[in-house]
Amino acid sequence: MVEKYAIRTDLALEEKERFEADNVEVQGVILEEEYDKEREIKMTRVMIETENGAKVMGKPVGTYITLEVPNLIVPDEDYHREISERLAQLVGELIKEKKKEYDVLVIGLGNRDVTPDALGPYVADNLIVTRHIIKEYGKYAMGEKKVHMVSAIVPGVMGKTGMETVEIVNGIVKETKPDFLIAIDALAARSTKRLNRTIQIADTGIHPGSGVGNNRGGITKETLGIPVIAIGVPTVVDAATIVNDTMENFLVALESSEMLRGVGVVLQGYNSAEKYEFIRELISPHLNGMFVTPKDIDDTMKRISYTISEALNILFSNGQA
Amino acid sequence: MVEKYAIRTDLALEEKERFEADNVEVQGVILEEEYDKEREIKMTRVMIETENGAKVMGKPVGTYITLEVPNLIVPDEDYHREISERLAQLVGELIKEKKKEYDVLVIGLGNRDVTPDALGPYVADNLIVTRHIIKEYGKYAMGEKKVHMVSAIVPGVMGKTGMETVEIVNGIVKETKPDFLIAIDALAARSTKRLNRTIQIADTGIHPGSGVGNNRGGITKETLGIPVIAIGVPTVVDAATIVNDTMENFLVALESSEMLRGVGVVLQGYNSAEKYEFIRELISPHLNGMFVTPKDIDDTMKRISYTISEALNILFSNGQA
Amino acid sequence: MVEKYAIRTDLALEEKERFEADNVEVQGVILEEEYDKEREIKMTRVMIETENGAKVMGKPVGTYITLEVPNLIVPDEDYHREISERLAQLVGELIKEKKKEYDVLVIGLGNRDVTPDALGPYVADNLIVTRHIIKEYGKYAMGEKKVHMVSAIVPGVMGKTGMETVEIVNGIVKETKPDFLIAIDALAARSTKRLNRTIQIADTGIHPGSGVGNNRGGITKETLGIPVIAIGVPTVVDAATIVNDTMENFLVALESSEMLRGVGVVLQGYNSAEKYEFIRELISPHLNGMFVTPKDIDDTMKRISYTISEALNILFSNGQA
Amino acid sequence: MVEKYAIRTDLALEEKERFEADNVEVQGVILEEEYDKEREIKMTRVMIETENGAKVMGKPVGTYITLEVPNLIVPDEDYHREISERLAQLVGELIKEKKKEYDVLVIGLGNRDVTPDALGPYVADNLIVTRHIIKEYGKYAMGEKKVHMVSAIVPGVMGKTGMETVEIVNGIVKETKPDFLIAIDALAARSTKRLNRTIQIADTGIHPGSGVGNNRGGITKETLGIPVIAIGVPTVVDAATIVNDTMENFLVALESSEMLRGVGVVLQGYNSAEKYEFIRELISPHLNGMFVTPKDIDDTMKRISYTISEALNILFSNGQA
Repeated sequence: MVEKYAIRTDLALEEKERFEADNVEVQGVILEEEYDKEREIKMTRVMIETENGAKVMGKPVGTYITLEVPNLIVPDEDYHREISERLAQLVGELIKEKKKEYDVLVIGLGNRDVTPDALGPYVADNLIVTRHIIKEYGKYAMGEKKVHMVSAIVPGVMGKTGMETVEIVNGIVKETKPDFLIAIDALAARSTKRLNRTIQIADTGIHPGSGVGNNRGGITKETLGIPVIAIGVPTVVDAATIVNDTMENFLVALESSEMLRGVGVVLQGYNSAEKYEFIRELISPHLNGMFVTPKDIDDTMKRISYTISEALNILFSNGQA
Repeated sequence: MVEKYAIRTDLALEEKERFEADNVEVQGVILEEEYDKEREIKMTRVMIETENGAKVMGKPVGTYITLEVPNLIVPDEDYHREISERLAQLVGELIKEKKKEYDVLVIGLGNRDVTPDALGPYVADNLIVTRHIIKEYGKYAMGEKKVHMVSAIVPGVMGKTGMETVEIVNGIVKETKPDFLIAIDALAARSTKRLNRTIQIADTGIHPGSGVGNNRGGITKETLGIPVIAIGVPTVVDAATIVNDTMENFLVALESSEMLRGVGVVLQGYNSAEKYEFIRELISPHLNGMFVTPKDIDDTMKRISYTISEALNILFSNGQA
Repeated sequence: MVEKYAIRTDLALEEKERFEADNVEVQGVILEEEYDKEREIKMTRVMIETENGAKVMGKPVGTYITLEVPNLIVPDEDYHREISERLAQLVGELIKEKKKEYDVLVIGLGNRDVTPDALGPYVADNLIVTRHIIKEYGKYAMGEKKVHMVSAIVPGVMGKTGMETVEIVNGIVKETKPDFLIAIDALAARSTKRLNRTIQIADTGIHPGSGVGNNRGGITKETLGIPVIAIGVPTVVDAATIVNDTMENFLVALESSEMLRGVGVVLQGYNSAEKYEFIRELISPHLNGMFVTPKDIDDTMKRISYTISEALNILFSNGQA
Repeated sequence: MVEKYAIRTDLALEEKERFEADNVEVQGVILEEEYDKEREIKMTRVMIETENGAKVMGKPVGTYITLEVPNLIVPDEDYHREISERLAQLVGELIKEKKKEYDVLVIGLGNRDVTPDALGPYVADNLIVTRHIIKEYGKYAMGEKKVHMVSAIVPGVMGKTGMETVEIVNGIVKETKPDFLIAIDALAARSTKRLNRTIQIADTGIHPGSGVGNNRGGITKETLGIPVIAIGVPTVVDAATIVNDTMENFLVALESSEMLRGVGVVLQGYNSAEKYEFIRELISPHLNGMFVTPKDIDDTMKRISYTISEALNILFSNGQA
């Protein structure tokens, strides 16, 4: 298959589907699915358990939970509240070392000035931070219920800071010593049909080459020394991916359609790699560094970022964690 | 040729090129070109002079000036100043009825919250408006040199106002009676290679289906009763266009390449329309309402919008018009 | 009393209090008060019924409803929802001509780039606009429940448009013919203790000299031909007012305090106007065009604007009007 | 004098003036002045050389350079360019350890969402950062001229991060090891007449209690281990200061004016501290946390921040340092 060579996705779910399409079972990878019919929410848990699984999936060992929510962009406050609650629960599951009082640092990755990359900064904007208050006034400072210590940073992108994100975050982590990180980032999906309707939570952090803005050094337990839970929403598809997709559909059609059977016969003489190389030549070099995103991305970003910040506020500031 | 059926471009230059590629001369359309070698600026003037020309080009009768500036996104202040001066001159050319004192309304079209659609609002942000000062204190209110009366409005997009842009602008025009309008808008190009390096100035206004945000009713002399000069920069390409493009490259390759000559033979049995229909089926329906834009669109928008607002400030507020 | 000469307030409630302080009953002005103990909301209705009342109060004939909500800046979503509902109800009361289907234009006055003046633009950002959808798809376009036609405009301030706000609004009103307007604006209070905890609703529109940004021509039934309901929140106090206030406290203290009784005796020889003139000389001329506002104004504006836009969404988009 | 007890200013110049008003010479403090008549720029250099001087001035030992530029808010590009060049020169003077290649971290302090506190973030927005490019491609990566390594961070305010600014900056400094810091911050002045027309550069960093947003832990060589040059512009005056000011004028008037001589006689019986206490009681407690700022603060911030970022770009990215 063409896409094995090049196509980029930040969604473990999409990697998994790729193999299912080929009817391949991947050793060391476990899949669980749940469907909430009433709310139309599909939850998929991809657990990569071995190094072999990691290698085949192209993603590190860990748990990847995906919520597919077709109505995520519909403006219904009650519905969004329910998503926030479900999300809070799932993030809570991924916190390994349970404690009575967490000290958590939330990182809003991405570029505030490029709308589809602004998920992280927008989530940080609506987050309730408490660390400074608890440090000053004690753990019941926010009212009768105890809340956790929440801090937040929007590090900015390398093109504006001159620093790799991991340098900034690492410095802050060493200084403030949180128990774990939650990193929020806009993701690149492989398919436009997932855009703005999927939320992925993973306990593996953010890896090089992920995200819209591409934060080179990973934001992971390996680089930072503490667990990193990543929350991401695919908001863009690489422009090259979309072209690739269509080309692949085309090749499939060539090989099967009545009308162009003759073409199919010709192409059978070539293997995947040859076909891929050929297609690559056709794709405009101008597509590098370009992405595809919907026109109403501003409304979508506002709504989804709010849903995520609410989830974190429920989890950490209202005592439900 | 495939693209004749569907491909959308807001650039007259691209329409013209389409015909040149086919070696067709279009009656009623005159083309002039100039190249400023030192500054690497190419200026193209497409004059559509007859209704026949308009029909063939798919654009109304009028003058379309295009500046192609490869270094438009490079941060060199002096260079941008030169572009602003050239732009001021060309906009000045398109003002038909010369007067000593213009009363001009600048309209910043587009959506401030979607980065590649924010050109109009950003230009308005840096514009020197003078109308209220001159009305209050007289024509030398801004200093020794006389300046023109400049007003500006950012009407917002239909999804946020519930009104068509032409309704808002028409109301304001009837109330404040400017001599002419200058409408700034982000455009859709046909090719990614033009993005953020081309400025189009036209004396025909903004037409339905143009622009990123698609302002339905036209902003034209016909709808508003006064001349409308449009200044646009292509900042996006429709996602469907990019896919279409690649497919077309593919078909050309199929018909010519050594390797796939056999496929070419098969395809020769089909005409353009049939091929186009076939390709259409392959393109994801999810691509509707999607656009392609570069990742560093924030820097680009800031720089280009500043160059345009400077051009208007030179033209109207420093007495050079 | 010193402040009779000069002090500016946009709140009818504060005008009324002034007279109460002097134990003066104003003919033609009726006052009603309600207190919601549980939610700590005080509602005051000042009805100016005669031209005499209007003259004494320095405000036009009409109804001014004030909600005093001490916890308006506290981040409690449920509480804010209740305020939104109460606000929706009160705005509904002020709509004179009841209809099954309203066509309402909401105007977000003020300057988006000066935080305490951004109330209007922020409210418009979160408003559900429906006019374009209903015009295109009919009155049940938004779902089973009928919704009203809502449109919105953020006209911008004169310093950025070169036009008076009333010119812009008048043009749009003539073109789109709404039944009535709702104008949102940040107000100047007389006392810092009201800042960001008071919402005023009035059926008299916005008058010259009101608001932070001072929209000169009024936005009223007289200037526009249709009813204008104004919703305002005091977010600033004129710097001169604060100085004046303290001076007055000082004079009162001089006249009464044990310690400075001697000074009081001296001052008794002067009347209010003389004292006021004297104080005026002491106030820095640099204070003109300056305002006082709290440091956390960003959080406050976000929260209050959201409460108001929710109120309008309840009233017009969920069929409760 | 009343203000000795309480009045806050971030400007060394204003501290110095206080003593001059009293005709006191402060040991250990040297003052130099220059006036550029043509450009109407006044430069004052206050050098606090001893601990005694520091104690009396209430500011640490170091050099404080102030540029007073009455036309700083006038939109004249050439003029602003000249200010930028002068500023670049003065900042260059304060870099103690001269090197061929600096590695400098610029910190944009303050709150982007509160207009008069947004100076730091705005300066960072327009800064040319080079560190990542030089690290990747070497020192001539930006062209023929060598440029220094510039990185930048906008840490955000404690209310939004839950962390003290010094924690964030310290972490980053330890990780990226710059040679020195440049910290940009909006300041509080003592007098409204200095607002937005004064730039202070100091080699002493930012101290607790300084700035609009009050970054508690200092950003200094003591806390961070490397030199910190601070660039500040007074954009606000504490509300309490303004009231205090007027009161003081009043007391002076009481003691001198013909009209109120009698009052003066009474007040002579009280010492400064008593008078101050008395005034303090009169000032509204609501003024705490309030500041005074001009209505056109948005234009001002845009213009001044641009002038400062240009100065840094001249100094570090065009090889003039």
